[in-house]
Amino acid sequence: MSAEQLVARVCAQARQAARRVAVAPSDRKNAALLLLAKLIEQNKAALQAENAIDVAAGREAGLSAAMIDRLTLSDGVIAGMAQGLREVAALPDPVGEMTAMWRRPNGLQVGRQRIPLGVIGFIYESRPNVTVDAAALCLKSGNAVVLKGGKEALRSNLALGRLIAQALEQSQLPAHAVQVIDTTDRAATLALLKQDELIDVIIPRGGESLIRFVAAESRIPVLKHYKGVCHVFVDRGADIAMAIDICVNSKCHRPGVCNAMETMLVHADIAESFLPRCAEALILRGVELRGCPRTLAIAPQAKPANDDDWPAEFLDLILAVRVVDSLEEAMDHIARYGSQHTEAIVTRDYARARRFIDGVDSSLVLVNASTRFNDGGQLGLGAEIGINTSKLHAFGPMGLTELTTTKFVALGNGQVRQ
Amino acid sequence: MSAEQLVARVCAQARQAARRVAVAPSDRKNAALLLLAKLIEQNKAALQAENAIDVAAGREAGLSAAMIDRLTLSDGVIAGMAQGLREVAALPDPVGEMTAMWRRPNGLQVGRQRIPLGVIGFIYESRPNVTVDAAALCLKSGNAVVLKGGKEALRSNLALGRLIAQALEQSQLPAHAVQVIDTTDRAATLALLKQDELIDVIIPRGGESLIRFVAAESRIPVLKHYKGVCHVFVDRGADIAMAIDICVNSKCHRPGVCNAMETMLVHADIAESFLPRCAEALILRGVELRGCPRTLAIAPQAKPANDDDWPAEFLDLILAVRVVDSLEEAMDHIARYGSQHTEAIVTRDYARARRFIDGVDSSLVLVNASTRFNDGGQLGLGAEIGINTSKLHAFGPMGLTELTTTKFVALGNGQVRQ
Repeated sequence: MSAEQLVARVCAQARQAARRVAVAPSDRKNAALLLLAKLIEQNKAALQAENAIDVAAGREAGLSAAMIDRLTLSDGVIAGMAQGLREVAALPDPVGEMTAMWRRPNGLQVGRQRIPLGVIGFIYESRPNVTVDAAALCLKSGNAVVLKGGKEALRSNLALGRLIAQALEQSQLPAHAVQVIDTTDRAATLALLKQDELIDVIIPRGGESLIRFVAAESRIPVLKHYKGVCHVFVDRGADIAMAIDICVNSKCHRPGVCNAMETMLVHADIAESFLPRCAEALILRGVELRGCPRTLAIAPQAKPANDDDWPAEFLDLILAVRVVDSLEEAMDHIARYGSQHTEAIVTRDYARARRFIDGVDSSLVLVNASTRFNDGGQLGLGAEIGINTSKLHAFGPMGLTELTTTKFVALGNGQVRQ
Repeated sequence: MSAEQLVARVCAQARQAARRVAVAPSDRKNAALLLLAKLIEQNKAALQAENAIDVAAGREAGLSAAMIDRLTLSDGVIAGMAQGLREVAALPDPVGEMTAMWRRPNGLQVGRQRIPLGVIGFIYESRPNVTVDAAALCLKSGNAVVLKGGKEALRSNLALGRLIAQALEQSQLPAHAVQVIDTTDRAATLALLKQDELIDVIIPRGGESLIRFVAAESRIPVLKHYKGVCHVFVDRGADIAMAIDICVNSKCHRPGVCNAMETMLVHADIAESFLPRCAEALILRGVELRGCPRTLAIAPQAKPANDDDWPAEFLDLILAVRVVDSLEEAMDHIARYGSQHTEAIVTRDYARARRFIDGVDSSLVLVNASTRFNDGGQLGLGAEIGINTSKLHAFGPMGLTELTTTKFVALGNGQVRQ
C-alpha cells in the first residue's frame, strides 16, 4: 500500500470512529485513560525495549544528544505519561456543555452546545510521549486523532499506539479513534495535509521549519504558532526589584522555549536606575545583552544590537535591550517586531497598565508577571495541546475546550418562519 | 498601479487602521454608524444616480432580471441599509468583554478578554447593500475590513464607500478602517487572498463557485459554507399537522436559500398516515417530489428519486423524500448526504429528541421547528455576516461575537515561574 493509500484508509477509519467517540459518555473516556495509564506502567519494559531500538538507530544516524534525550522513554518520562493520563481523566469533560441558552420571542429556545471538532491531524517530531499526551487530550474532548510522529520515534510510537488501541477496545470505544500512521515515508505527511474532507484541523508541534512546511502545504485549517518573540516593558516608576525578578525569570527560567523573553524594553525615565542592576543580574546568569545605543551608554557590558536582533527569537541566553521614551513607543515596537505571543509590562501605574492590556495584540498580555506563564497548565486550562498565534478559533494556549466547538440547538413546539 | 499593488496598499492601510479601530470606544463606533445612516438617506439621489450607471451597464451586459434586481438600490433597499445601520448601532459591543476570569493558586488573576480579529477580507457578488451591512458589522466589532464586491456593482460600492469614509472621519475614526477595492480586475481578488500577513480572515458571500474559488486560492483562513443540504426527519408518532407545517415551511418559505429543506426523511411507522397528506400540501405549493421506492408506493404523485438527488441542493421547489426504518437510519442518511448545515426532527418522543440533538453533527439541530430558523437574526444573534459550516472558530451563523476572538490577560504582583 502506498503512503497515500495508507493515509486515506487511516483517515476514513478515523472519521467513522469520530462519530462514535463524539457521543461517548465521559465515564467511558475516563476509564480508557485510566486503563491506558495502567497499561503503560505494566508494559514499561516492553515499551523501553522498542524505544531502545529507536534510540540505537538514532545514535547510528548521528542524532544530537538533545534529540536522543527527547527520544528516550526513561522511567521518568513513562511515569510522566501515566501521571498525565490520570490528570486528564480528572479534568471536566467539555463536551455537551450548553454554553448559553436563551428564549426567542416566538418561544423557540436556542442554545449553544459544545461538541468535538471531529478528526484532528496531529503532526509532531521526536518525543514519543507526545503520542500519549495528544491522544489523551483528543479522546477526552471527544475527537478522533490521526498521529504522525517523527520517523526516528516510529517503533516507540507504534508500541504506544497498540496500548492505546487496547485501552480503547477494553473500554468499549472504537480503536480507530486514535491511530499512529505506520510509515516513515514523508509523503504520508503531505497526504495527510490534503485530506480536507476527512480531517477537521491540523495541529503541528515542533520546530519552525516543520510548522512552516505544514502551513504551506495544508488544505486543512492549521492551529499553529511559528515563534515567540516575547517582550517585557519596564515602565517608568516600576518596582525595580520586581522588574529584575520578572525579567530574569522571563529570560533565564527556560530560555529555549517560545514564552521566554527575547527583547526587554525600558522606559528612559527608569533606565539609569534599572538597567545597570538588571544587566548585572542577567550577565551573572550568562545572558548576552545586545543593546540599542542608549542601552550601551548606560550598560556598557552590552554588545551593540543590530536590526536583525529586534525580530529575533534567540531561544538562547541572548537578550535584545532597547530604551524607549514612552509607553506608545514600547507598544509600537511590539506591534512592529513582536509575534503576538506574550507581552508583559512591569508598572505601578493603573492607567498605563490598562492601556498596555488593551493596546497590545498578543495571545497573553501580563501585568507584573513573568512571560513564562503563557502555558495552558500555568494559566489554569488543565492541560495544553499547543498554542495558536493566529486569531481564528483559539488565540493562545489550547486546552480541552479549544479542541471543541459549539453547535446551535433549537427546541420548539411547532415554530415556523412567518 | 497594478491590481496587486493596489491590494497591497489597501491591506497595509487596513492593518494600520485596525490597531486604532480595535481600541475605539463603542460610542464613537456607534456615532459613525448612525451618521452613515443619515448620510445614506441624505444622499439617496446621488447614490441612485451612480447605481443607475451600474444597472444600465448590467443590462447592456445581459445580466438576468434576478441579477439586475439584486444590483438595484431601490428606495426600499436604501431604507433597509439605513435601518440596518441603526440596528447594528443598538447592539451590544462585544469588544472588551471579559468572558471569564479566575485566580490561580499563586495569586495571578487570569481572564479572557474579547478582542477584534483584526482585518477582515470580505468578498461578495452583486448586491451593493452588502457593502454597508458588512462594513457595519466589521466596524462595530472593532475590525478593519477590505471589501471586494462584484465588478457589476463597482460604481455603487465606491459611492457607498465614500459615504462610509466620510462617516468614519467625522466620527474621529480612521477612514481606512473600511475600504472598497477600486478595480474590476479579477487579479485583485487573487491578490487579496495571498495577503496572509495583513488579513486575518476571509469571508466570502455568494454562489458555490465563488466560495470554492476563494477556498482553493486563499492562504488566509476562510469562514464559509458551500451549500445547505438540510433535512427534516418526521419521526414515528409525530404530530402530523405540526410535521406538515414544518415541512411546508422548511421547503416553501424561501426555497432558494441555504436553510431550506432539500430532503425529507419519514419514519416507516408514520409514512402511511403522514406522507399522502404532506405530499398533497407540498404539491399544492408547486413542489416536485422525488421519492425512494417506498415513498412512491405511498405517494404516487412523486417521481422516482435517483442517487444524485440525495446529496443535491436544489435551491428550488424540488424535494427528495425517503422512508427510513429507524432514527439511526435517518441519522446515518444525514451523516452521509448532509452538509452539516441544518437538520430538524419532528417528534413527540423525549429520548429520541435527545438522541437526535446529540447525534446529528450540524451547525443547527432543531426539534419541532422549521429549518428556516438557521439565521443569525432568527436565532437571536442580532445580525449575521455569514454562516460557517467548517467547525473551526464559529460553527453556524456568525454575528458580531463571531467577528471577535479572545486573548488572555494576567494580572500579577510580581509572580515568576518556580
